[in-house]
Amino acid sequence: MEKKKLNVGLVGAGFMGRTHSNAFRQVGEFFKLDYQPVLKAVATRNAQSAADFAVNWGFESWEDDWRKLIERKDIDVIDIASPNDTHAEIAIAAAQAGKMVMSEKPLGRNAAESEQMVAAVEAAKVPNMVWYNYRRVPAVTLAKQLIDDGRLGRIFHYRAKFLQDWTISADVPQGGAGTWRLDAQVAGSGVTGDLLAHCIDTALWFNGSIDSVTAATETFVKQRTHAVSGKVEDVKIDDASAFLARFHNGSLATFEATRYARGHKALYTLEINGEHASIAWDLHDLHRLSFFDHGDEGQLRGWRSIHITDGDHPYMRHWWVPGLQIGYEHTFIHQAADFIQGLSSGQPATPTFRDALKTDYVTDAVLASARSGRWEQVRS
Amino acid sequence: MEKKKLNVGLVGAGFMGRTHSNAFRQVGEFFKLDYQPVLKAVATRNAQSAADFAVNWGFESWEDDWRKLIERKDIDVIDIASPNDTHAEIAIAAAQAGKMVMSEKPLGRNAAESEQMVAAVEAAKVPNMVWYNYRRVPAVTLAKQLIDDGRLGRIFHYRAKFLQDWTISADVPQGGAGTWRLDAQVAGSGVTGDLLAHCIDTALWFNGSIDSVTAATETFVKQRTHAVSGKVEDVKIDDASAFLARFHNGSLATFEATRYARGHKALYTLEINGEHASIAWDLHDLHRLSFFDHGDEGQLRGWRSIHITDGDHPYMRHWWVPGLQIGYEHTFIHQAADFIQGLSSGQPATPTFRDALKTDYVTDAVLASARSGRWEQVRS
Amino acid sequence: MEKKKLNVGLVGAGFMGRTHSNAFRQVGEFFKLDYQPVLKAVATRNAQSAADFAVNWGFESWEDDWRKLIERKDIDVIDIASPNDTHAEIAIAAAQAGKMVMSEKPLGRNAAESEQMVAAVEAAKVPNMVWYNYRRVPAVTLAKQLIDDGRLGRIFHYRAKFLQDWTISADVPQGGAGTWRLDAQVAGSGVTGDLLAHCIDTALWFNGSIDSVTAATETFVKQRTHAVSGKVEDVKIDDASAFLARFHNGSLATFEATRYARGHKALYTLEINGEHASIAWDLHDLHRLSFFDHGDEGQLRGWRSIHITDGDHPYMRHWWVPGLQIGYEHTFIHQAADFIQGLSSGQPATPTFRDALKTDYVTDAVLASARSGRWEQVRS
Amino acid sequence: MEKKKLNVGLVGAGFMGRTHSNAFRQVGEFFKLDYQPVLKAVATRNAQSAADFAVNWGFESWEDDWRKLIERKDIDVIDIASPNDTHAEIAIAAAQAGKMVMSEKPLGRNAAESEQMVAAVEAAKVPNMVWYNYRRVPAVTLAKQLIDDGRLGRIFHYRAKFLQDWTISADVPQGGAGTWRLDAQVAGSGVTGDLLAHCIDTALWFNGSIDSVTAATETFVKQRTHAVSGKVEDVKIDDASAFLARFHNGSLATFEATRYARGHKALYTLEINGEHASIAWDLHDLHRLSFFDHGDEGQLRGWRSIHITDGDHPYMRHWWVPGLQIGYEHTFIHQAADFIQGLSSGQPATPTFRDALKTDYVTDAVLASARSGRWEQVRS
Repeated sequence: MEKKKLNVGLVGAGFMGRTHSNAFRQVGEFFKLDYQPVLKAVATRNAQSAADFAVNWGFESWEDDWRKLIERKDIDVIDIASPNDTHAEIAIAAAQAGKMVMSEKPLGRNAAESEQMVAAVEAAKVPNMVWYNYRRVPAVTLAKQLIDDGRLGRIFHYRAKFLQDWTISADVPQGGAGTWRLDAQVAGSGVTGDLLAHCIDTALWFNGSIDSVTAATETFVKQRTHAVSGKVEDVKIDDASAFLARFHNGSLATFEATRYARGHKALYTLEINGEHASIAWDLHDLHRLSFFDHGDEGQLRGWRSIHITDGDHPYMRHWWVPGLQIGYEHTFIHQAADFIQGLSSGQPATPTFRDALKTDYVTDAVLASARSGRWEQVRS
Repeated sequence: MEKKKLNVGLVGAGFMGRTHSNAFRQVGEFFKLDYQPVLKAVATRNAQSAADFAVNWGFESWEDDWRKLIERKDIDVIDIASPNDTHAEIAIAAAQAGKMVMSEKPLGRNAAESEQMVAAVEAAKVPNMVWYNYRRVPAVTLAKQLIDDGRLGRIFHYRAKFLQDWTISADVPQGGAGTWRLDAQVAGSGVTGDLLAHCIDTALWFNGSIDSVTAATETFVKQRTHAVSGKVEDVKIDDASAFLARFHNGSLATFEATRYARGHKALYTLEINGEHASIAWDLHDLHRLSFFDHGDEGQLRGWRSIHITDGDHPYMRHWWVPGLQIGYEHTFIHQAADFIQGLSSGQPATPTFRDALKTDYVTDAVLASARSGRWEQVRS
Repeated sequence: MEKKKLNVGLVGAGFMGRTHSNAFRQVGEFFKLDYQPVLKAVATRNAQSAADFAVNWGFESWEDDWRKLIERKDIDVIDIASPNDTHAEIAIAAAQAGKMVMSEKPLGRNAAESEQMVAAVEAAKVPNMVWYNYRRVPAVTLAKQLIDDGRLGRIFHYRAKFLQDWTISADVPQGGAGTWRLDAQVAGSGVTGDLLAHCIDTALWFNGSIDSVTAATETFVKQRTHAVSGKVEDVKIDDASAFLARFHNGSLATFEATRYARGHKALYTLEINGEHASIAWDLHDLHRLSFFDHGDEGQLRGWRSIHITDGDHPYMRHWWVPGLQIGYEHTFIHQAADFIQGLSSGQPATPTFRDALKTDYVTDAVLASARSGRWEQVRS
Repeated sequence: MEKKKLNVGLVGAGFMGRTHSNAFRQVGEFFKLDYQPVLKAVATRNAQSAADFAVNWGFESWEDDWRKLIERKDIDVIDIASPNDTHAEIAIAAAQAGKMVMSEKPLGRNAAESEQMVAAVEAAKVPNMVWYNYRRVPAVTLAKQLIDDGRLGRIFHYRAKFLQDWTISADVPQGGAGTWRLDAQVAGSGVTGDLLAHCIDTALWFNGSIDSVTAATETFVKQRTHAVSGKVEDVKIDDASAFLARFHNGSLATFEATRYARGHKALYTLEINGEHASIAWDLHDLHRLSFFDHGDEGQLRGWRSIHITDGDHPYMRHWWVPGLQIGYEHTFIHQAADFIQGLSSGQPATPTFRDALKTDYVTDAVLASARSGRWEQVRS
């Protein structure tokens, strides 16, 4: 039972580079797959960083330019874990070179970039996927199954928010290694593309397409020192973003993201209310799912807190025993496993680039509405 | 220490009539006050209902027309607990007759009605108050004190929602005794005036005025049988209502109310995020307050769940001993106590009619925005 | 529909005097009953206290000696809310005078006293009841119904604890008005008779009789000033008490009570585990019941948090609307209602004196085991 | 910076074999250590199982007898993850061969075995450690630090329980691969050595030594089919075990473990109450710590739910970013890291065999008390 190799070339040696590397390293021990990922090379601009990262994670080699990765014949898949402003160029070049392409989210900095990326991978007919990892939280995957099974009936409401508090201090810089997410040129947008994009990806997956939105954004700290230039510069990202949405299925929704919600580190919460049942989940206790079933006997109806650690819960038979929780990093392992299974089955793992483009249409509409003060239609 | 009498004339013998009667009956045992409420008379259109209610609650007499209450010399305060479409006429007549006036919320069916009510009580210089009872949940009152003490610092976010699920079935009628809240003619609006009004009242109290809103409303069940006419008629209220708001202090907010959130009976939740601290509360566990203090030592920062049952918590020294919770009805008792103390001190209990008018300006703007599809300024 | 009168003579004007008075005052508004309690007289040793209490709560008269209450012909029921050392003498005298008798818990200071009390009321054939009020928390009553319906199947485990923290400071005195619970002469025992007695009463009601126990007690603060004598005296009560129990049905149990559990004010928690289902409840959120049903579909099993505020929940149709919680004091109102309904139906409300004696047999065995260091059989 | 090698020989290819292998594989990516574990060989009785396990986890080789592992010169540390009845023999042989020894918990099947194991490793002066992994849950480690810092003051109470429900069905067999924990000959005892041992290890670490215990055990299902013999045999393990304890520091404790608590999968809960503060934690939400500080301002005292995911929380700087939780498996990675750091520093990681022996003295006393019906002193 010799496995085939899936030779990975990773771009980026930051936080997401770590989560992806870990996923590729671990997936083979926990999932029976036809392909074994091989950490072939990592590329990042600083050669020393590339080398250190490669040694730490067991990459066979490293490069100081992502273009060298794409040129290499011994690499099957280019995995993009570098800042947002690099996604489009790398993905397009990789696709044109016939590589499979994985990209961190959001796909591009805006839908225009993303459309080019979709066109490139589809023209090249290469497998492609975007790392909207929260789809692979077992509780979230179970929620999707319940919705698809029709357990909720007609949907009335969807609500999601993603709350953080790490940029409240005006001393946090913008730009540079750890804080490029505050630099609009690099990130494309602020919390809209960073945090709301996660909320939207799940929402579209759960509840279908969004027709229109009305939005508000805010930048609470107007100027920050730029970590690269060293100068105090205007902050051009959105610190907070909220919108109301009408889904195509007639349901009404609220969305919000911010980095100014004191007390919340990475609190992504979602809830969906249907005629027969409701589901809620949050990232701070990701191993639990809240479920209310109106079909339960009247006196005994209540929100159930389901500890998603049983063998019959999505992905969980690959892990430990009931009661023992997994964490954040496992979502990436699951997604890596699904990508590989997609290669075997011919059923691509989602979200593909095309799927992820839909999220960008929503974020574009959100930002447009925040500017226009009007409801904006979402492209489709 | 003979107490003075406060002779109460109650209009309405429904749910709110019960909560008010209970408040007047109990307040004297738990609070030391200069005035003892006396349940002088209750008025409701059906004489038998009035009589039954009077006997049950210990009213000395009853009437089948509120006008008779106003004519009576032995009544000091007219307390309006009848449906929304009656508030304005009764309040204005009562004020003109020189009675003190208490009204259930919302004040009028819209700000135009409410302005007339304000004008009437201010012209007559009579004490007046609106029963936005949730201000008197001890946890909510404590939150207000913390905000006023500057504990939170600059405010970035406010979010509130009020979720119910009792009208999901299309078999629920509109109009009539138990369901007049679904009849736009009687109620003025749907959840906007019913549930959002509570959220807005607290929000204005906590966080100052709202400058502008963008809103969406929805009516999920388009037709319902009218309980009075017996005919199937178009539903004209809003089943759900959501809006984004910009407060005058620069903070960004989301609000939502619905009667279609399966699994939630009366889940009013609120959260306010400031630079230094955050506060959250919900009505389903009203005796708890959630508080996060960034000033806590780093490793030990966490949301505190404060069991608001100690003698030094607002209103609680009047009740039992630490650990023993009070419930919903107590908020009315507290408000009755505060009204009476306001008579003694000359500092009127809030919200006065004028205070409550501000909530109507917001709900009017919400409904206007839902119609116009634009941001609407809130009058002030 | 003129109601009959139930003329109440209350002994004691402390905390429990307040809860009982409130119950008698309110029960008629919320429950349809054949008898209307009338607050005829209150007795307490200090005449001024008696008078103040009577005025506050609306008693028609007052006495400075409980014996005078018993002599009065216009009193039907003697309700004992005075310290534990008075229960037996008053109850026996009342029964001998042909009065109905209600007593605060525990019945006597020990089973020997309680047996005399039982003998007295049974000889006199007078209605009698002990105020183990937590049976009438709607969530607790519902739990009892579920158990009686066989929903849990064979029972394996029971666990209960009652945690407080109000006596940690060595400055808290013993004896006197507010702290007689620390005076062994008055209280009989410490937390065993005070807090554990509640846990045991519920446990016997839910799970049948206890065969044997092994226990440990501890007195953490060895000496305290006596509030009456003013002298520093040895503390003779148990500050903490824990025991293991074997129920007659074969289940194994743990019980614990203390006034030294920092952070807990009145945290009575209970849990019962059966073959098919489990139930948990705690007093700090008394309006919720936790229920786990193994019969639920596999993937969706979870603990339900049931918000016990619906009209089909025990007692709740008498109160407000779904979602609106009641509190501590309502348990006494429910018990008063049940007592009165028992008078009408001839089915006495529980726990009767005889029922409550069983709790005393357990607490006696607990204290005996703590002294002997052996398992002790529980009398029955 | 070439790392030294730590050549690992693993005995056992079951659940614990997996957690240990995973720990050795991952520790090097997340912790900067002087030694890199090398998965040299795995041994288990079934050669095919050994081979499969080795291939899956990347062991360089495999053996069908643990004795062969010990004979190999290329192995530095013998890690015992096989059933309890093998621990002593393997550990003693490994120590005598000069290998470092790690053992799954409990150390031996009873203290007599464990004493021999301690003697062997101490005579051989080889590094040794027992995998009481829950000490390395970051929340638990933080609790230990808070206690050691004196934050709690004088300790009054300790309580712990470990609740499971997986053996309620009488169809679960005893003995064999997945169910050897029900076979007294293999396991030594039932929940006492399996689950209570975890509770006791943490308790001794947090709160010092236990002087005496009184205990009860129960076997609810008296006979089960033996998976090896195929015969119905008497069950000789304890299905449930509970005890009261007196700690040397004067605090009073309750402990309980069972596999018959419907609704709980692996609910290890602990709480410690001190004069100034209290701490609680449970395994079902292992990434949270509950902390109550009486030093907090009066009105704002409450239990804090601390999300243990910050860089300044124990171990967490090695993982992701604030808000993103880790899970069960990480506790083993932390323990592997600490073992290796102990090799470098000369400060052995705890619990050593000697430390773990103290837990066995307690479990022996618990089982003895359950038999004798008396309080039993704990050896020390």
